[in-house]
Amino acid sequence: MKLDKLVGERFKEKPSDCVIDSHALMMRGGYMKDVAKGIYSQFMPLKRTCQKIEGIIRQEMNAIDGQEVLFPVALPASLWDESGRYESVGSELLRFTDRNGSKMVLGMTHEEAAVHLVRDYAKSYNNYPFMIYQIQTKFRDEARPRAGLIRVREFTMKDAYSFHTSQEDLEKYYDICYDAYNRIFARAGIPEVVTVASDSGMMGGSLAHEYMLLTPIGEDSIAICQDESCDFRANMEAAASIIENTKDAEDQPLTKVSTPNVHTMEDVCDFLKVSLEKSCKAVVYQKNMTDDYVVIFLRGDLDVNETKLTNFLGEDVHPAVITEESGLKAGFIGPVDLTVSGNATIIYDKSLEGSNNLICGANEMDFHCTGLCVERDLPNAEYIDVAKIIEGGICPCCGKKTITISRGIEVGNIFQLGTKYTKSMNMQYLDADGNAQYPIMGCYGIGVGRLAASVCEAHHDEYGPIWPISIAPWQVHLCCLRADDQEAKACADKLYEDLKKKGIEVIYDDRQVRPGVMFSDADLLGVPIRLIVSPRNMKESVVELKTRDKSVEEKVPVDQVMEKVDQLMKDMFDKLNA
Amino acid sequence: MKLDKLVGERFKEKPSDCVIDSHALMMRGGYMKDVAKGIYSQFMPLKRTCQKIEGIIRQEMNAIDGQEVLFPVALPASLWDESGRYESVGSELLRFTDRNGSKMVLGMTHEEAAVHLVRDYAKSYNNYPFMIYQIQTKFRDEARPRAGLIRVREFTMKDAYSFHTSQEDLEKYYDICYDAYNRIFARAGIPEVVTVASDSGMMGGSLAHEYMLLTPIGEDSIAICQDESCDFRANMEAAASIIENTKDAEDQPLTKVSTPNVHTMEDVCDFLKVSLEKSCKAVVYQKNMTDDYVVIFLRGDLDVNETKLTNFLGEDVHPAVITEESGLKAGFIGPVDLTVSGNATIIYDKSLEGSNNLICGANEMDFHCTGLCVERDLPNAEYIDVAKIIEGGICPCCGKKTITISRGIEVGNIFQLGTKYTKSMNMQYLDADGNAQYPIMGCYGIGVGRLAASVCEAHHDEYGPIWPISIAPWQVHLCCLRADDQEAKACADKLYEDLKKKGIEVIYDDRQVRPGVMFSDADLLGVPIRLIVSPRNMKESVVELKTRDKSVEEKVPVDQVMEKVDQLMKDMFDKLNA
Repeated sequence: MKLDKLVGERFKEKPSDCVIDSHALMMRGGYMKDVAKGIYSQFMPLKRTCQKIEGIIRQEMNAIDGQEVLFPVALPASLWDESGRYESVGSELLRFTDRNGSKMVLGMTHEEAAVHLVRDYAKSYNNYPFMIYQIQTKFRDEARPRAGLIRVREFTMKDAYSFHTSQEDLEKYYDICYDAYNRIFARAGIPEVVTVASDSGMMGGSLAHEYMLLTPIGEDSIAICQDESCDFRANMEAAASIIENTKDAEDQPLTKVSTPNVHTMEDVCDFLKVSLEKSCKAVVYQKNMTDDYVVIFLRGDLDVNETKLTNFLGEDVHPAVITEESGLKAGFIGPVDLTVSGNATIIYDKSLEGSNNLICGANEMDFHCTGLCVERDLPNAEYIDVAKIIEGGICPCCGKKTITISRGIEVGNIFQLGTKYTKSMNMQYLDADGNAQYPIMGCYGIGVGRLAASVCEAHHDEYGPIWPISIAPWQVHLCCLRADDQEAKACADKLYEDLKKKGIEVIYDDRQVRPGVMFSDADLLGVPIRLIVSPRNMKESVVELKTRDKSVEEKVPVDQVMEKVDQLMKDMFDKLNA
Repeated sequence: MKLDKLVGERFKEKPSDCVIDSHALMMRGGYMKDVAKGIYSQFMPLKRTCQKIEGIIRQEMNAIDGQEVLFPVALPASLWDESGRYESVGSELLRFTDRNGSKMVLGMTHEEAAVHLVRDYAKSYNNYPFMIYQIQTKFRDEARPRAGLIRVREFTMKDAYSFHTSQEDLEKYYDICYDAYNRIFARAGIPEVVTVASDSGMMGGSLAHEYMLLTPIGEDSIAICQDESCDFRANMEAAASIIENTKDAEDQPLTKVSTPNVHTMEDVCDFLKVSLEKSCKAVVYQKNMTDDYVVIFLRGDLDVNETKLTNFLGEDVHPAVITEESGLKAGFIGPVDLTVSGNATIIYDKSLEGSNNLICGANEMDFHCTGLCVERDLPNAEYIDVAKIIEGGICPCCGKKTITISRGIEVGNIFQLGTKYTKSMNMQYLDADGNAQYPIMGCYGIGVGRLAASVCEAHHDEYGPIWPISIAPWQVHLCCLRADDQEAKACADKLYEDLKKKGIEVIYDDRQVRPGVMFSDADLLGVPIRLIVSPRNMKESVVELKTRDKSVEEKVPVDQVMEKVDQLMKDMFDKLNA
């Protein structure tokens, strides 16, 4: 490929709407273009990188006996009705009607389609286990698409579904897939990806893992235990918050105190000169379906984890609009003598359990209480974990106060789904004894574009991406400085032909432009091996060879270039496959 | 791949809703499954065949300097507004709104997306020419999906778009693409595909060709000149209907005759003992937008081609509902003294030009006229070609009466679009003199699934598809008869490993089932080379080698099998690439 015909604009200025580097560099490098919010077209360099990622995924899925299939993008609503998700999933599921008025959806995940494809086939235990997967376009109508390819509305995804006759067999395959995923990320150039326990969310099922690339720009928060002998890592949503309260020796009486114009618990504690940990604050939501209030009481220094909350409630919530009619006194809500209109849910977080002498709202304007003793004052309370785990908190695994919170990008996930879909969609097989059984499912996803962007996040400098050889749009970037110099041009032309003949993917820049322009374009394309032919080098009969990561920079005699490139490529691939 | 784990059902009975063989065989062979009307999931065998077709297309597109890109499936309506197609395209364009109420469409073709992707880039004549293409899912909300993969609603398509600075340059590239398409079809196993001139329809533009697989089950009608020295071939819609009328020496007077209860022109001509060619019939439509009447007069033996009609009108029509208020006398409509309510359009087909002494309706119940002489009675008529060309009709190219009508499946198409999209979407470049110009576009499509089905239509027997080696789901089908026989099983197992080691794609059937079941499954999978290991063959130390097309059937010594398979595969590929 000659660079002068490569379609796409490369430019220097960081677009103002790009907040993360991979987004900015991919826009600046002519990798993609906005079509609508969270919807992009891909130019050739990104398409090639994604294709290579797909190739790696395909190899690894085939190696664990995956059968590649294809599900539709447009699915009938009736399939999603069967699983119950047509109703239960929010507006990120794009619903529409076709010309005949039939209800349809755009697939954002394909559990229903997978069960539909195989339920007539897999009628006997002999057919099990098996795994099917596809690499296909998905649509998820995100409220806030952002961060370039990290959170988009339309994306290419590999999604795999395995079917088993026992939990043991699922677990065996889950482990196999776990390893295959690690190989995929290593081969794509980010072996540093870690697995974390995750919440299975709308997918249903029990055990689930996410593969996280730890980076400050990540959207997910991950609790990690820093104790060397402990390997606890979990998405915040899946990390139990464990609190050790210091209980005062003596219970004080519940006493109303005036706290005029002091609304937040921080301000109240400041005002009353009490530590935040000795307070009980209220956080109020409303259920999406009914607008019924949900009042959560938890220790004043903690926050509610909304995923834990919605998992407990079994439905979605939004921050409450507190009206006068509600009976709630915003800023002064407390657990004693609370009155709320309608069918409200009151939740006590585990952080309050066994605590005493706390500050709390008095359910009266401009008044709080001191001396809340939960055992005495809330004798019927049940305690639920809905709080976010905190930095320095207690590890749910080893019990030490060794939790740190990191941020990460989720590049893949694996779920043990159980029988959620096979039961709801009535997929059965006959076991060896002739009894009807529901198969047990696992599912396994990787977003292709998000993985490309994550590799770019992990490996770039201010000038552009530093692509690993395995997924770089090209393997060699050949620059001919001063293409008007006959000798240099002839040498570069010959190298171009030789490289192509050897099956090496080469992009050739023989434009008559300044070296600065040439090199900044090359940096943006991020090709791992660069060859520079110039009149000055010709005098010594050498070619400059540089790697994009700057680990190699040498002059190579012209007649040894092919051999050197070959060896370097081999080394690069070996390193990724190690 | 072991056959006993291949997901998908194979069965014997032809499904009742399958009217063409490829559909029935693909259902019976476990290639695909209905998800909704015209929407299928693909099992592994079909997915593999489609992937191989995509591989061939990709190679040939890259070889003519195509740059692979990716456009979104979901596109903002605003893009289609720019080209005017959001309004002009019918309900086959799936329109929906996203969660924020923004209007969107599912891409059924991507001219708008292609112009959007490159219009900021290709600002200078130096950037031209270039071609971009994608292989992506498309959705077309067909009113009547049918014939399996031939006419579906969701499909995978390769669509390519080229951009040029002159008509000459477009034509040069069009010819290059024309040849590449011929190579694609030859390599996919249907070199018999022919090109026909076509109507460019909703795409706009002038010159267009369709690639047709001629088959009685095809949906398109194609006019072909049978004269050896003429190569006229055109889709009916694009074939001019040329009529030579025999004019009587003397004009007769226009005379009203009673034709009670005789409605069709055939009946009238029978009744009056006149040849149909000496009649002028009326066909009535209504415009879709306004319901205004469109009355077409043409020779009694001809039919209206609706595509020619809508192209002339510039809008869509439907067969008329003739009310009493319309003034039209159904069955007795004629061109003289015709009165129609509203804003009617009257069209005279070329087949009437210069004719005389015709029968026609008298615009009065139960009366026709004889002696219609068009020059005398319709002095202001202009004649338009809206008739279907007929079997035995005159070739528009060589002028002989050598036209035959064949049926075909359109497996690809190429269009010269001109500046329709670049003008409407305001894409401009500066030419060498610094003047702003609109680039000239071509576009080039191939449906992947339809091509797979077409190859199956062209190459099958009653037992299954006969896949060409280039697109077969596997290359070798290894059958072990009597897998309970140790020697046979050991031999088959070794062959399986040897074939895999050599990179040959093999599906291995070692189930303990009757040979009949084994062979009918193999026939349905249509793999070109079959190896049969059996205890009987073991006695002679041979393996049976058969090709699916029955051209080869021999016993090969076990130690020569690999060599023989290798040679046979090479021969098969060579034949396709010749």
